Amino acid sequence: MKATGDIQCIPIGSGVSVRAEVKRAHAILEQAGLNAMLHPNGTAVEGELEDVLEAVRTIHETLHAEGVVRLVSYVKIATRTDKDPSLEGKLFDTGS
Amino acid sequence: MKATGDIQCIPIGSGVSVRAEVKRAHAILEQAGLNAMLHPNGTAVEGELEDVLEAVRTIHETLHAEGVVRLVSYVKIATRTDKDPSLEGKLFDTGS
Amino acid sequence: MKATGDIQCIPIGSGVSVRAEVKRAHAILEQAGLNAMLHPNGTAVEGELEDVLEAVRTIHETLHAEGVVRLVSYVKIATRTDKDPSLEGKLFDTGS
Amino acid sequence: MKATGDIQCIPIGSGVSVRAEVKRAHAILEQAGLNAMLHPNGTAVEGELEDVLEAVRTIHETLHAEGVVRLVSYVKIATRTDKDPSLEGKLFDTGS
Repeated sequence: MKATGDIQCIPIGSGVSVRAEVKRAHAILEQAGLNAMLHPNGTAVEGELEDVLEAVRTIHETLHAEGVVRLVSYVKIATRTDKDPSLEGKLFDTGS
Repeated sequence: MKATGDIQCIPIGSGVSVRAEVKRAHAILEQAGLNAMLHPNGTAVEGELEDVLEAVRTIHETLHAEGVVRLVSYVKIATRTDKDPSLEGKLFDTGS
Repeated sequence: MKATGDIQCIPIGSGVSVRAEVKRAHAILEQAGLNAMLHPNGTAVEGELEDVLEAVRTIHETLHAEGVVRLVSYVKIATRTDKDPSLEGKLFDTGS
Repeated sequence: MKATGDIQCIPIGSGVSVRAEVKRAHAILEQAGLNAMLHPNGTAVEGELEDVLEAVRTIHETLHAEGVVRLVSYVKIATRTDKDPSLEGKLFDTGS
């Protein structure tokens, strides 16, 4: 089942700048084969529901393996059965 | 890897009352073997990271199979490597 | 105090399409004098903290006055004292 | 207009433990005269829409005045015109 979503990752206790971790999370989403669109507060994604969720897991496991002690992600997942959800469709719909 | 989280599901276009769908989502989280604690805006959960994410997938697939046309979930996922995260620990810490 | 933020509005019980309400919310954010950047899952905003919060109130009051029965907003608010937060800075920082 | 909501505050760069800041935010919500119910991932609140939003501003201003450099809040705001929203009603509805 296809999904659109939004993923925002925040490392806690890594210092005031979180730039490196956020870049890393965005790269993982792109490597996961998701359609990933960066915006100021996170990354909008489009792909199979299980791939989106799997990418969240990969972000947490990878960043912890690289030394991040504490990580919080805010994830929005949207699915619908009446038509194929897409990021483009949502933008065309003015963010619906 | 263990995680704590928070899951809020909102059916769109199912009418003003979303009681049935929210009850169903909460039941799925409990059936998934997660430590699940209901609160006014969602369900706090504790369990293996992959089980929490898998439960989100089950909620979407189950509710759609039962007729919900459009579903949005807001999911918070928190992991840490310095100690085992738990809902009880978070409440003791006053919600940290 | 300056803030950046992200605002996502979801009408409940208004039907499967939420396009009209989301367009309206985005227009209110622009009319509020905020720097507002649409993305697939909401609107990123930048402005004075109190103006951002006031705009959230205006969205709820306006949409209800126009007939929406139930409305949920997910709002992210970020402030910092070490430098002026901006949407451009966050994009340059790859979404931090 | 009455609202229910949920407020989660995360200080960034304040160290791995965020206990002190989260306690402080919860205390501010209670002092604001809101019906405030702590849960593992934040505080559920009920009150006038403008009071809820004003409390978010107070949290940011207070914590920064007390030394927090960077603060992110995730705020859910829910309003409805068909009946008075309340935290108790939401719990009775199983989190709707």
